[in-house]
Amino acid sequence: MISKKMEKMVTNNSAIRAMFEEGNRLAKIYGKENVFDFSLGNPNVPAPAAVKAAIEEILEEDSLMVHGYNNSNAGYEDVRQVIAGSLNRRFQTAFSEKNIIMTVGAAGGLNVILKALLNPGDEVLTFAPYFVEYRSYVANYDGVLLEVSPNTVDFQPKLDEFEAKITPKTRAVIVNTPNNPTGVVYSEETIKKMAAIMESKQKEFGTEIILISDEPYRELAYDGVEVPYLTKYYNNTVVGYSYSKSLSLPGERIGYLVIPDEMTDSENVIQAAVIANRILGFVNAPTLQQRVVAKCIDEKTDISYYDKNRETLYNGLKELGFECTKPQGAFYLFVKSPVADEKEFVTTAKKYNLLLVPGSSFACPGYVRIAYCVSHETIVNSLPKFAELAKEYK
Amino acid sequence: MISKKMEKMVTNNSAIRAMFEEGNRLAKIYGKENVFDFSLGNPNVPAPAAVKAAIEEILEEDSLMVHGYNNSNAGYEDVRQVIAGSLNRRFQTAFSEKNIIMTVGAAGGLNVILKALLNPGDEVLTFAPYFVEYRSYVANYDGVLLEVSPNTVDFQPKLDEFEAKITPKTRAVIVNTPNNPTGVVYSEETIKKMAAIMESKQKEFGTEIILISDEPYRELAYDGVEVPYLTKYYNNTVVGYSYSKSLSLPGERIGYLVIPDEMTDSENVIQAAVIANRILGFVNAPTLQQRVVAKCIDEKTDISYYDKNRETLYNGLKELGFECTKPQGAFYLFVKSPVADEKEFVTTAKKYNLLLVPGSSFACPGYVRIAYCVSHETIVNSLPKFAELAKEYK
Repeated sequence: MISKKMEKMVTNNSAIRAMFEEGNRLAKIYGKENVFDFSLGNPNVPAPAAVKAAIEEILEEDSLMVHGYNNSNAGYEDVRQVIAGSLNRRFQTAFSEKNIIMTVGAAGGLNVILKALLNPGDEVLTFAPYFVEYRSYVANYDGVLLEVSPNTVDFQPKLDEFEAKITPKTRAVIVNTPNNPTGVVYSEETIKKMAAIMESKQKEFGTEIILISDEPYRELAYDGVEVPYLTKYYNNTVVGYSYSKSLSLPGERIGYLVIPDEMTDSENVIQAAVIANRILGFVNAPTLQQRVVAKCIDEKTDISYYDKNRETLYNGLKELGFECTKPQGAFYLFVKSPVADEKEFVTTAKKYNLLLVPGSSFACPGYVRIAYCVSHETIVNSLPKFAELAKEYK
Repeated sequence: MISKKMEKMVTNNSAIRAMFEEGNRLAKIYGKENVFDFSLGNPNVPAPAAVKAAIEEILEEDSLMVHGYNNSNAGYEDVRQVIAGSLNRRFQTAFSEKNIIMTVGAAGGLNVILKALLNPGDEVLTFAPYFVEYRSYVANYDGVLLEVSPNTVDFQPKLDEFEAKITPKTRAVIVNTPNNPTGVVYSEETIKKMAAIMESKQKEFGTEIILISDEPYRELAYDGVEVPYLTKYYNNTVVGYSYSKSLSLPGERIGYLVIPDEMTDSENVIQAAVIANRILGFVNAPTLQQRVVAKCIDEKTDISYYDKNRETLYNGLKELGFECTKPQGAFYLFVKSPVADEKEFVTTAKKYNLLLVPGSSFACPGYVRIAYCVSHETIVNSLPKFAELAKEYK
């Protein structure tokens, strides 16, 4: 009954679905507080109080304006101006509202730009481990996702392999820094090297290779680390942003794309993206939330909350003998499984009500992802369980 | 730089864009109140007061729940229960929450179900005149949209031609009643005949043909006319609904799909649709608005407002000698152009600051669409302009 493409996805989906249901099952037996669900990237920090205040303020305005269609499918012009201005102040860029397209989250934005750019058979490169949905997003437009293998020493990108894997069919490269699932941030030096490789390959092949920067975790960086703004290093860059983590609004689906003037054929790409946004059925980003993010442009989520979790969990696990690169951003730890088959480790962990995600789901077997965007109490109470788990592998 | 598929769309888009800019240009010269913009289906009735009250009430709850990810990409279970219950009460159906998938508007919903169902080359039938975006939605999944020619006598579907055009490759049929752009409502008799044709063709070809009912205008029906609920007449029916018009929330992108148990392989279709919703980048429908529509389930937009516009405009235009089928639903009049080339008529109308949409945009040349979801004042003040326009063609 369903399409051939979807048949495969429904089959694959069952595993993830089964794990999710397992979590619910365990919670029913042991009580929610005794199940340590580290599987989802759902922020546990409430939205800033300013979000509520902004909504209340907006509701006093004319309902036809608040909830109506936008004049442009790219979103409210004044909202896009506010965002461009904020980026310009923070990153010394020179965007105007026309470079910003409001999207239904970063996931919506990635789909929009991939639809605007990809012809069937085009190759898209990304670095393992990576957010598994990239594969589906690229497949939606009949592109082929190819991966650079993981560098398990420090999870920085393997640039030699990257260079070797760029072909005349390479249309785009997706990077995600701060990274899901490793928490690693790419340094300015890395970005410069990456940009130089892409520039040189563009010349060699006479092609345009677009760098797509998926940035839902931009604001979640610790220890004062800088997250370089990629449009400044490489002209053919598109940024996909989301307020899901920075304002704790993941369910509201609000984000934007940045398509800079420096990009080749920029005007056309912008127009194609606006049309893709419309015909994929997004039409426009949700209007009330567009206004909210403009009003909350200088608001920040309380990252000290995640930072505290990061320190407690990282130190706790290291003490127990687990191997892990200390993350500089996002809210994930990517921990080496004590046995090669990390799915077995995940199954064992479940005995202690610890719900982890196998690295295979991120094209990096032998590791597990722990999402620490949970309450600090959950972190603290989980450590004795991790201790019991560690014992099994000694 | 952009994909081949999008190149064509960017070229075609320029015409619509030009018209939109023309409206803005005229408004600047003559003042907004002297430009009669009948081009957009943007409701002019404010959202019911209950919407504001609902949002304020929801904001008092835990922000993590209000703005967080849903447990299921299908949307909040309790919201889906409320919607299923409301449909069951109104239409004597037997839906539960699992039959409802919350979507980013009806446009999002149509994309989701088409992605779930279509293989490349599959045929989708619809009845001219039709909402032009169907062509893009079907093309997104490499389907082929085929049209049944318009019945310009009363704009009811031509069922003989419909029957003749169903082939073994026909995968879906899209209907839209109340209809954009004609305002026509399909009678129960029509629906029964249509269902019988599809049942018989399914048997003849050994195929499954899915009826997709696009229903953003369901609640906008006048003169007490009944809009039949299609799942009751044909098992393989999927309904796409939107609150854009019924609660005047077009910018908020909130709607749902109904996939009934009676449908062949229903469980699989539901699962495929939920996954399609996720991988197309919608992820989940906006959370705050999900809660709003549940709280406002019994609220209705003030259709007497549109009804008044309908009467004034329809009677006014008839008196001036224009030909038009009186619409029973939606908020559009589909008026016969006094000259065969309706684009010429649209251009002439522009001289009087009357902005109309050519029927060619709905696969029905020789007609123009007038969206009367504007203020009553605009309707009244436009009539002398229509009178001047009519004179040109006498």
